[in-house]
Amino acid sequence: MSFEQWKEELKENYLETVAWRRHLHAHPEPSFEEVETARFVKEKLESFGIEDIRTDVGNGYGIVAKIKGKYPGPTIALRADFDALRVTEEIETPFKSKNEGIMHACGHDGHTASLLSVAKVMAKHTDELHGTIVLLHQHAEEVLPGGAKSMVEDGALDGVDYVFGIHLGATQPLNKVFYNVAFGSANSDSFNMKIQGKGGHGAAPHDTHDALTVGAQIVTNLQQIVSRMTDPVKPAVLTFAGFQSGGEAYNIIADATEIKGTVRTLHQDVQELVESKLKSMSQSIAAAYDATVEIDYTKGYPAIENTPEVVDVVKASLLKDFPENEVAEVKESMGGEDFAYFLKEKPGAFLRVGAQPPEKSDAYPHHHPKFEIDERALLRSGEVFLSLIKTYLQG
Amino acid sequence: MSFEQWKEELKENYLETVAWRRHLHAHPEPSFEEVETARFVKEKLESFGIEDIRTDVGNGYGIVAKIKGKYPGPTIALRADFDALRVTEEIETPFKSKNEGIMHACGHDGHTASLLSVAKVMAKHTDELHGTIVLLHQHAEEVLPGGAKSMVEDGALDGVDYVFGIHLGATQPLNKVFYNVAFGSANSDSFNMKIQGKGGHGAAPHDTHDALTVGAQIVTNLQQIVSRMTDPVKPAVLTFAGFQSGGEAYNIIADATEIKGTVRTLHQDVQELVESKLKSMSQSIAAAYDATVEIDYTKGYPAIENTPEVVDVVKASLLKDFPENEVAEVKESMGGEDFAYFLKEKPGAFLRVGAQPPEKSDAYPHHHPKFEIDERALLRSGEVFLSLIKTYLQG
Amino acid sequence: MSFEQWKEELKENYLETVAWRRHLHAHPEPSFEEVETARFVKEKLESFGIEDIRTDVGNGYGIVAKIKGKYPGPTIALRADFDALRVTEEIETPFKSKNEGIMHACGHDGHTASLLSVAKVMAKHTDELHGTIVLLHQHAEEVLPGGAKSMVEDGALDGVDYVFGIHLGATQPLNKVFYNVAFGSANSDSFNMKIQGKGGHGAAPHDTHDALTVGAQIVTNLQQIVSRMTDPVKPAVLTFAGFQSGGEAYNIIADATEIKGTVRTLHQDVQELVESKLKSMSQSIAAAYDATVEIDYTKGYPAIENTPEVVDVVKASLLKDFPENEVAEVKESMGGEDFAYFLKEKPGAFLRVGAQPPEKSDAYPHHHPKFEIDERALLRSGEVFLSLIKTYLQG
Amino acid sequence: MSFEQWKEELKENYLETVAWRRHLHAHPEPSFEEVETARFVKEKLESFGIEDIRTDVGNGYGIVAKIKGKYPGPTIALRADFDALRVTEEIETPFKSKNEGIMHACGHDGHTASLLSVAKVMAKHTDELHGTIVLLHQHAEEVLPGGAKSMVEDGALDGVDYVFGIHLGATQPLNKVFYNVAFGSANSDSFNMKIQGKGGHGAAPHDTHDALTVGAQIVTNLQQIVSRMTDPVKPAVLTFAGFQSGGEAYNIIADATEIKGTVRTLHQDVQELVESKLKSMSQSIAAAYDATVEIDYTKGYPAIENTPEVVDVVKASLLKDFPENEVAEVKESMGGEDFAYFLKEKPGAFLRVGAQPPEKSDAYPHHHPKFEIDERALLRSGEVFLSLIKTYLQG
Repeated sequence: MSFEQWKEELKENYLETVAWRRHLHAHPEPSFEEVETARFVKEKLESFGIEDIRTDVGNGYGIVAKIKGKYPGPTIALRADFDALRVTEEIETPFKSKNEGIMHACGHDGHTASLLSVAKVMAKHTDELHGTIVLLHQHAEEVLPGGAKSMVEDGALDGVDYVFGIHLGATQPLNKVFYNVAFGSANSDSFNMKIQGKGGHGAAPHDTHDALTVGAQIVTNLQQIVSRMTDPVKPAVLTFAGFQSGGEAYNIIADATEIKGTVRTLHQDVQELVESKLKSMSQSIAAAYDATVEIDYTKGYPAIENTPEVVDVVKASLLKDFPENEVAEVKESMGGEDFAYFLKEKPGAFLRVGAQPPEKSDAYPHHHPKFEIDERALLRSGEVFLSLIKTYLQG
Repeated sequence: MSFEQWKEELKENYLETVAWRRHLHAHPEPSFEEVETARFVKEKLESFGIEDIRTDVGNGYGIVAKIKGKYPGPTIALRADFDALRVTEEIETPFKSKNEGIMHACGHDGHTASLLSVAKVMAKHTDELHGTIVLLHQHAEEVLPGGAKSMVEDGALDGVDYVFGIHLGATQPLNKVFYNVAFGSANSDSFNMKIQGKGGHGAAPHDTHDALTVGAQIVTNLQQIVSRMTDPVKPAVLTFAGFQSGGEAYNIIADATEIKGTVRTLHQDVQELVESKLKSMSQSIAAAYDATVEIDYTKGYPAIENTPEVVDVVKASLLKDFPENEVAEVKESMGGEDFAYFLKEKPGAFLRVGAQPPEKSDAYPHHHPKFEIDERALLRSGEVFLSLIKTYLQG
Repeated sequence: MSFEQWKEELKENYLETVAWRRHLHAHPEPSFEEVETARFVKEKLESFGIEDIRTDVGNGYGIVAKIKGKYPGPTIALRADFDALRVTEEIETPFKSKNEGIMHACGHDGHTASLLSVAKVMAKHTDELHGTIVLLHQHAEEVLPGGAKSMVEDGALDGVDYVFGIHLGATQPLNKVFYNVAFGSANSDSFNMKIQGKGGHGAAPHDTHDALTVGAQIVTNLQQIVSRMTDPVKPAVLTFAGFQSGGEAYNIIADATEIKGTVRTLHQDVQELVESKLKSMSQSIAAAYDATVEIDYTKGYPAIENTPEVVDVVKASLLKDFPENEVAEVKESMGGEDFAYFLKEKPGAFLRVGAQPPEKSDAYPHHHPKFEIDERALLRSGEVFLSLIKTYLQG
Repeated sequence: MSFEQWKEELKENYLETVAWRRHLHAHPEPSFEEVETARFVKEKLESFGIEDIRTDVGNGYGIVAKIKGKYPGPTIALRADFDALRVTEEIETPFKSKNEGIMHACGHDGHTASLLSVAKVMAKHTDELHGTIVLLHQHAEEVLPGGAKSMVEDGALDGVDYVFGIHLGATQPLNKVFYNVAFGSANSDSFNMKIQGKGGHGAAPHDTHDALTVGAQIVTNLQQIVSRMTDPVKPAVLTFAGFQSGGEAYNIIADATEIKGTVRTLHQDVQELVESKLKSMSQSIAAAYDATVEIDYTKGYPAIENTPEVVDVVKASLLKDFPENEVAEVKESMGGEDFAYFLKEKPGAFLRVGAQPPEKSDAYPHHHPKFEIDERALLRSGEVFLSLIKTYLQG
């Protein structure tokens, strides 16, 4: 059966795949600035003999390439994002980032190399395919407004029937494949809040409207949005990530407090409720202290909603192709991912592949300066893509 | 000198004074119901040969009696209150309260006996007096609206030049005499608050507006009235004395919370600020949680404001007549006393005489079922009155 | 096919089923006191010709009856609980509760009548059955420790392969059938907390350790257990349902505060975390205020965990036998149910059947004095049991 | 009488006094760096014929000069501080600060010029003096540890019987003279607090110990130190003046929060209680959230405690020499002043002279970039010193 052959070839390409990944790792580029990365991807795709390649797709350097099968059939899109983060790498390796202050600290280098290795294999087997593979090499996943939405708007999913993405997980067991039944990520909103009080001398609080204590009360009162106001079976997170009030002086009451944070939800009604209560409660609490508050609320990436029927198919496919103990359902994550925009357009699923170095029991999380993946997961990730190709495009 | 003679006679009457006090102690009557107490006082005054006695003064059983001196001169009023409390006595003595659930737990029995003993002495010495002594035996100090205000309105202070009161202090050192420079008690207001939320099942808080947590937030937020909004050098107390929400069930969210408490202040601007913030902050906090709040705020007794010039005279008088280490200034108390109404009408001062049994290092406070005074303080209290009489009425 | 015949006979029995339910409704008995109810059930079962009936099963009046099929096969248990609540009915009907202060305010009368009607039908069709039906008429679902656990311990599930229960839902659309994929109810724990401070006069808070404000701070601080400390995708509820501090006086600071409430969770790790943090945070907060706290924490019913494979079978069965729009998955409920104990012993599922009167858009919730069900749901509930019997026992 | 003559000469020197003040205002020097200021003062004193001048007294540029009277008598010390602040002046005047970022924003330029004018007058009248005037030109009042303490330790008060200081008040009515009965400033302490939690991703608060919300809870819980734990008649202020947690990211939970602030008290027992509770409560609250806290608490200037007997003398002196409506008692201030150290050593009093420009109803407070004084207050301040000299040194 050809699937075994594909896997064999993928394995043969493993060292080259790792080399690609290390090249990308050493030359990371931040979101919306991935000029060399896109060039590298394009050159590789061309070197595989792939001809249908669009560059500069969407609002950045997105690439859409097609591997058309000999036989008619459905079209499936496979996505790998390729942007890096503004993080300064703290691990010494031969392929450490050469770009000061930039790092592939989320594994997108691995995503890209892995999808390239799949492309290389499949480009040689078009005569076995009943349908078409669309390769989505996406830019700018890390920074709003992201690249995915604009790629969709630029036609990246035209003619596509199903769309799939894989994310490597540095804190998930190596080579284990995870699927979600429903939500794969959260609505990821952010907000800025400015509390305006009236400053003055620390010895005379009664002559001020103390914006610092108002801020503290807003933070403590608003805990009840999650603890009392949202449906307990519909997840919600309200994180206050920044709180700044006052400066160097020990005895000056500042006239303002600035607070920022993020709101994570899965369901739209909860998202709306949290936004609404965040605003109305802050206003009321501030008013209690004769202060005012201004809030800017920005809706970020929507939640990934996997297509239930596709998840059923994918689950069956995975359980057939991998050992049962290497496939598992995973609970919803409250993280954000702009793959959500692809799933708003087409049915599909977003999967995760464990990439935690087995010897590291307490691996560093994504976005950390010491973030690390076990490169063997690149092979597993490729195998998952091959499994999906087999399932959807073998007639 | 006659003052020494008065004191001598007072001392000779001591056992009788104690007997009077014990009689009153055994037969306590609550505020506005002091029928037998008033009868007792009247009979004693008559037995001293005092003829100018008005009864039923004010809104209760108040008594105003006059001891007119042979010579013209100023009029000074001396006040003792005589009502008891609805407290069940817990100390076994031969003179334990015979009236179930009623107790002289604030020392008014001592005030009354002591003033009577002064009256007995002075009734015999009118030929030494340049002026008039007015005895104010007041009913109903413990319960709003009190007796003092109505006695003033009923003419009790007509013709009076100065007014004085003494309170025994069960937790102050025996026989020590205390004066305040300015404030002697606090504006003593009270309030009821009803928070109306929306009840429901404890497993579904999001379907309710949880009045209990709203109440807790009101209590915690309103701490800032005292800690941040009032002038630190102008005392204020906001005490939440009752909080009731929910009943027997572990899983029912109640639809309301009832809170009550007291507000103590010295200065009118602070009193108004606390009342105003109590109302506005509660409304704002409740609104933050989609609840509403109703507040009834009742102004109680005003603060005692001693007359500075009179305090100077009294202080000098005390330091002359008592050992220096038995006279002391004491800081303002945040307690309430309707003697304040007398001082709103006439100059004067309110003093305290320590009555703590020396062997009791940790005496029970006023209003406690085990409240106790050392009866020797009755003599000292009488001596203080005699000192004032001497100062103002010896020509 | 016999299933259609069964349903036909069930429908013919509908009026009698309603009559049974109304009889039970008029004669409600509280948990652990269901003497007449159990007698009624037993008599009915006997009247159907059922011979294998055990009474007084478990710690109360539980009944276990068996309908043995002609052919060998699996054994499925069907459960209906039959206790009422200490609630005073407020709806006027001809079958209003005759037992003062007791009411079938949770629909258990309907559960019982519906299962009896199924028993009556199936008792006539034993020759079509490949296996055995066990009827679990359970006492005391509403009051800890419940009847289910003791029935299991008393052998009620011996030999049983699968166990099923149905709950009528007064606020769910009439005749709609709901299943949960995983959790069907929550771990339902309860707690009592006593905060010991030091009382005193409301005018002198500094001489006290104010147990009321400590209580308010515990309530507000502990909101973070749910809002910040539990995994957002693992539901948790911490409800403070009772808060009592102080009494009639406006100026007495009480020396204690009593708080009670409920904790609802689905996952054991979350249950343990909430219990642990409830205790440790309360201790720490109280210590901050020089108060102490005692907490009694009682684990109640565990969460219902439906068996995934059984849910798959049940779902297929329902979708086959009922219109697609009358079958739906429903999110987890945070309510409590001692059916959980049956599922801890055997595979199975707990279902819900909507019983909201269609004309009532805003129906009263369970346990409310005006709680009401649409009796047509009894028929639907019976049909669901028949569907399960067909699926598991038709060979 | 010579006092009238002194005042006359002071008035004649007014324009020169103003010129000195403007010179100092244009050339401000920050605490501990007042080289030119000290030189200016010394030159002026020498120009008045004063010979007994010590420079570099204490830990900086302090100056102690003596004007010895012809006759024996007591020694009184008069203090003026001369340091400026690190504030950038925002008012345009011909004598605007020429030293970038430094400003006489607290009126010390006025203090110095006024005392110099007194020195000039009195240096000519030594033959009228029964006793000695000590001029204390103090450096570094604004910055801990201040200059006063070190000047005392360096002998500045050796032989002194009484010590007096005057502060101009930019928000007090022009030329009004204020005295305090007891406290003239507050114990002015400061603190730094570092809360150490455990950072992480904003979408997964349960994996962190959120130092920001812990900080908010510490701020809200610690309000009760002032509102419930300190004696309401003993002033206390606890101001949180700085709160920093998190940075630019919306979705990163920081691992620490830094808080700073000031504590103001009058009484030592309250000072100790607030420090103690600040520490213990923070520890307990942090522990509730599995965080830790480190607190550095620095005791600053102690409270000014005027000598009651001296205040009586001063009050009488002022009421004799100035119109009654221009002399008033003023409530305690919660500000800080290192004049306190002089009063810890010798009896004396600290006075204030109003310097608010009459046309400015809403004058800027001290330390503000637009701070301003009405220069006529320099004359009044000088007259107050002359009144004290007359009272104490005219035999």
